[in-house]
Amino acid sequence: KRTGFKKVFPVNVKREYIFNDKCYKSIKEITEHIDLAILVVPAKYSYEIIKDAVESKVSAIIIISGGFRESGKSGIELEDKIKLEIKDTETRVLGPNCLGIYSAPNNLSSFFLPSEKMNIPKREKNELSILSQSGAISVNLMHLLPNVGVRSIVSFGNMADVDATDLITHFNKDKGTKVIALYIEGFKNGRKFYEVAKNLEKPLIVLKGGKVEEVKEATISHVGAMAGDYDIVKTVFGDANVINAEDIQQFFEYCKIFTLLDEKRVEGNKIAVLSNSGGLGILGADGIKNSRLSLTKYSKNTISKIKNIVRGFLTVSNPTDIGTDATDMDYIEVAKYICDDREVSALVLLPGFEPPPIEIPRLIKNIEKICKQTEKPIVVAFTQTEDRIKYANQLESKNVPVFQSPERAVKALGKYINYYYQTGYFPWESSSVNL
Amino acid sequence: KRTGFKKVFPVNVKREYIFNDKCYKSIKEITEHIDLAILVVPAKYSYEIIKDAVESKVSAIIIISGGFRESGKSGIELEDKIKLEIKDTETRVLGPNCLGIYSAPNNLSSFFLPSEKMNIPKREKNELSILSQSGAISVNLMHLLPNVGVRSIVSFGNMADVDATDLITHFNKDKGTKVIALYIEGFKNGRKFYEVAKNLEKPLIVLKGGKVEEVKEATISHVGAMAGDYDIVKTVFGDANVINAEDIQQFFEYCKIFTLLDEKRVEGNKIAVLSNSGGLGILGADGIKNSRLSLTKYSKNTISKIKNIVRGFLTVSNPTDIGTDATDMDYIEVAKYICDDREVSALVLLPGFEPPPIEIPRLIKNIEKICKQTEKPIVVAFTQTEDRIKYANQLESKNVPVFQSPERAVKALGKYINYYYQTGYFPWESSSVNL
Repeated sequence: KRTGFKKVFPVNVKREYIFNDKCYKSIKEITEHIDLAILVVPAKYSYEIIKDAVESKVSAIIIISGGFRESGKSGIELEDKIKLEIKDTETRVLGPNCLGIYSAPNNLSSFFLPSEKMNIPKREKNELSILSQSGAISVNLMHLLPNVGVRSIVSFGNMADVDATDLITHFNKDKGTKVIALYIEGFKNGRKFYEVAKNLEKPLIVLKGGKVEEVKEATISHVGAMAGDYDIVKTVFGDANVINAEDIQQFFEYCKIFTLLDEKRVEGNKIAVLSNSGGLGILGADGIKNSRLSLTKYSKNTISKIKNIVRGFLTVSNPTDIGTDATDMDYIEVAKYICDDREVSALVLLPGFEPPPIEIPRLIKNIEKICKQTEKPIVVAFTQTEDRIKYANQLESKNVPVFQSPERAVKALGKYINYYYQTGYFPWESSSVNL
Repeated sequence: KRTGFKKVFPVNVKREYIFNDKCYKSIKEITEHIDLAILVVPAKYSYEIIKDAVESKVSAIIIISGGFRESGKSGIELEDKIKLEIKDTETRVLGPNCLGIYSAPNNLSSFFLPSEKMNIPKREKNELSILSQSGAISVNLMHLLPNVGVRSIVSFGNMADVDATDLITHFNKDKGTKVIALYIEGFKNGRKFYEVAKNLEKPLIVLKGGKVEEVKEATISHVGAMAGDYDIVKTVFGDANVINAEDIQQFFEYCKIFTLLDEKRVEGNKIAVLSNSGGLGILGADGIKNSRLSLTKYSKNTISKIKNIVRGFLTVSNPTDIGTDATDMDYIEVAKYICDDREVSALVLLPGFEPPPIEIPRLIKNIEKICKQTEKPIVVAFTQTEDRIKYANQLESKNVPVFQSPERAVKALGKYINYYYQTGYFPWESSSVNL
C-alpha cells in the first residue's frame, strides 16, 4: 500500500495474516477483480498459481522469481508451459526473472529492494521511461541519473509473454513519456522490433548487451535469450533511427541529454566551444569531427563584441579560449554573445574552475540563466570532484546536462543533433550540414 | 618559502619590500647563486630580465607569463629573441605560457593558483609524474586522480627551450617516478620523441590534443605549436609502446591503473569477470574482445568450488553471475577461488550493491583484502553515486583501481596487460594470447 497499490490481497498457503491483512490460500478465493498479481514464489510452484490467476481473469501478472528459461532445460519447459497456459487469455505476464515495474504517476513499485538501496530520482517532470531486460542495469541507471525525472521503469526479464517491442509500443503512446531507454540482450522478434522502432514518435536509446560471440552463453543463462550479431543489430538500429549507446556510460549520458534538453530547438550542427582554458577547448573541438558536427565561424559582430570584453585578445577563434585572466562575468558575457550569433546552432561550455578570477558559485548561477534564456542547446562539462558534484546537480536540476569531460559532452550533443537531423523533426539547411 | 623554497629573493623595480623581504631591483644585484628564477612579468619586459639572469648564471628560469609564440607575430619574435639569448648558456628555460612545476619530494610549487583551487593528492607513495603543455589539463588531472600519488607536475607551455622529450628523458631516470603521463598538442621534434619514447623503462601515457584538422589553429593560439596528423602520431605511439589515451577520461583512467597496479604481475590475458548481476557481467565481458583479452575457462576444481557456494547454480560460466540471492560473503569466497585458478590471469570485479543480501561496507573491506593477498591484477567497477564515492576512495587508497563502468574497467585493464605484453617485461606463453 505504501508503494501505491489501492488494495492488496496477500496470498500464502501457510499464513493467516500478513501485516494485519487477511491472507488468502489461493487467488481463486478472492472475489474482486484483480488488476495485477505479483508472483514471488519459487519457480516450481508458479505454474499452479498462474493457472488459478488465469481462471480468475487476473489482468496482469509479474513473475519476479527466477529459475525459468535462464536456468536450463527444466526451466525452459516450465516457462513454455506457462506461455501455453496464458495463450489467448486476457492475462498478460511480465517476466519471469525480473524486478517488475516502477511507475511514478501511479506511485507504484514492485521492486523488491530495500528502500535505502532504491534511488528513484524525484523531479517535477518525469519524462524518461526505462525498459531493461536486466534488473541490475535498470537500478544502476536510476543511480546514474540522479537529476533526470524517471517516469517508469520496467524490468522485463525473460519476456515469456510481454516483450521489449510491446513495451516500446506502449510507451510510445504514453503521453507523459518523452524519451524511452532500453537495455536488451536478445530480441525475440527482430523484424517486429524494427517495424515498431522506425515509426516511433520519440527518441529510443538502446544499450545492447552481449555484443561479442563469447558472451552469448552468458546471455542465455542471464535472461534465456540468444544475443544476436552486434553488427547486424547496429545496422538495424541505424535504419530505424534508434540511438545506439556503445556502453553503459553513453547509455546514461544519452538518456540525460535527450530528457533534459527536450525543449531546445535543433536548427543546425554548427557548434561553438567556449572555455577559459585552451587545453579543455581543444579537447572539446577534437570531439566535433567524430560526431558529425562542425566548428562554426562566428559573425564579425560577435568577434568584435568578444574582443571588447577580453583584454589583449588578438584572434577570436573557435574553440574560443578567453584565457585564465578572464573573470566569470567575462565568461558569461562571451557565452551570451555566442548564443546570439546566428552562425551558432549549439554551444559547448567548458568552464575551468581553477583560474583565480573565477568565482564558481556565481559562474554556475549565470550559466543556468543563459541556458534558460536561449532556445539553443547548451551542454556543459567540468571536472566533477567530490566537492564539486553539487554544481553539476544544480545545473541539471535546471535542465542543463553536465558531462564529465569535453569529449563526452560533444559526443552526447552530436547524438542529440544527429537524431533530430535524421528524423527530420528539426530540419536545417543542408548547406550547413557537414556529414 | 611556504611552498618549499629554501631562500627567496623578491625582484621588483617598484617596491622596497615584499612580505618583509628586501626587494631587489634586478637579478644582477643578488650575489648568491640562483637555482631558479620564476618570471611573472608582462611579456614585453621579459627579454631584459632574461638577459640579466643569463649574465648572473641563473640555472633555470620558469616563464609563467603568456604573450609569446601563442599570441601572434610579435610574440614569436620575442620568443625567438629569448631562445637566441639562452643558446649555449648554462641557463635553461621552462615555458613561457605555463604554470611551471610542482614537486612532491621537494615540496616545491610555482603554480600561481589559490590553494583552495589546487588539489594535489597526498599519499604515502607518489609515483606519477604529469607533464602537460596545458596548465588547465594538469590541474584537472590532479582533481581527477584524488587517490593517485602525484610525484611531479610540469606544465611546460610553449617549449621555447625545455621540451616534452627533455622532460620525459629526465623522469625516465628519476627513481621515484614509476609512471609518466603527458598531455601534448604539438611536438617540436617528432623523431627525437620517438627515439626517447621507444627506449623508456617505464610506462608513458599520452593524451594528444588537437586531433583534427579544424583544431590546428586553436593549438597555435594556445601553445604556439602546430598539431601533427593524428593518424601518424598514433602509428608512432604504437611503434614506441606509448600508451595512447583517446580522451581525457581514458587519460586519467590509464594513469590510475598503471600507477596503482604497478606491483601486480601480468602473466597472461585470460580474464575472469565476476558479478552478482547478470547484466553488469555481460557488459564487462562485451569489453573483453575489443581489448585484445580473452574470457578464460575455469578449471574443473574452481567450478565445483563455486557450485558448492552458490545455491542452485547449474552452470558456472564466465562472466560469472552468482545471482541476486548471493551474500557479500558468497561473493568474496567465489572471488578468492577465481584468483586461485591458474587459468585466470586477472579479475574484473563488478559488485552490484543493490541486492538485499549485500552488506556494502563489509563487501568493500573484503575486496580490499583479496586484492592485497593476490599477485594478480584486479580491477573493480560499480556505480559511484554521490554517497558511494567513498567506497571507491577507500579501495583506491589501498591500490585497487575503481572504474565507473564494467566497460571502462575492462578497457583500462586491457591497456595495462597489453603494455606489459608488448614491452616483454612480463612475457607469457604465446598459446594463451589471443591477439
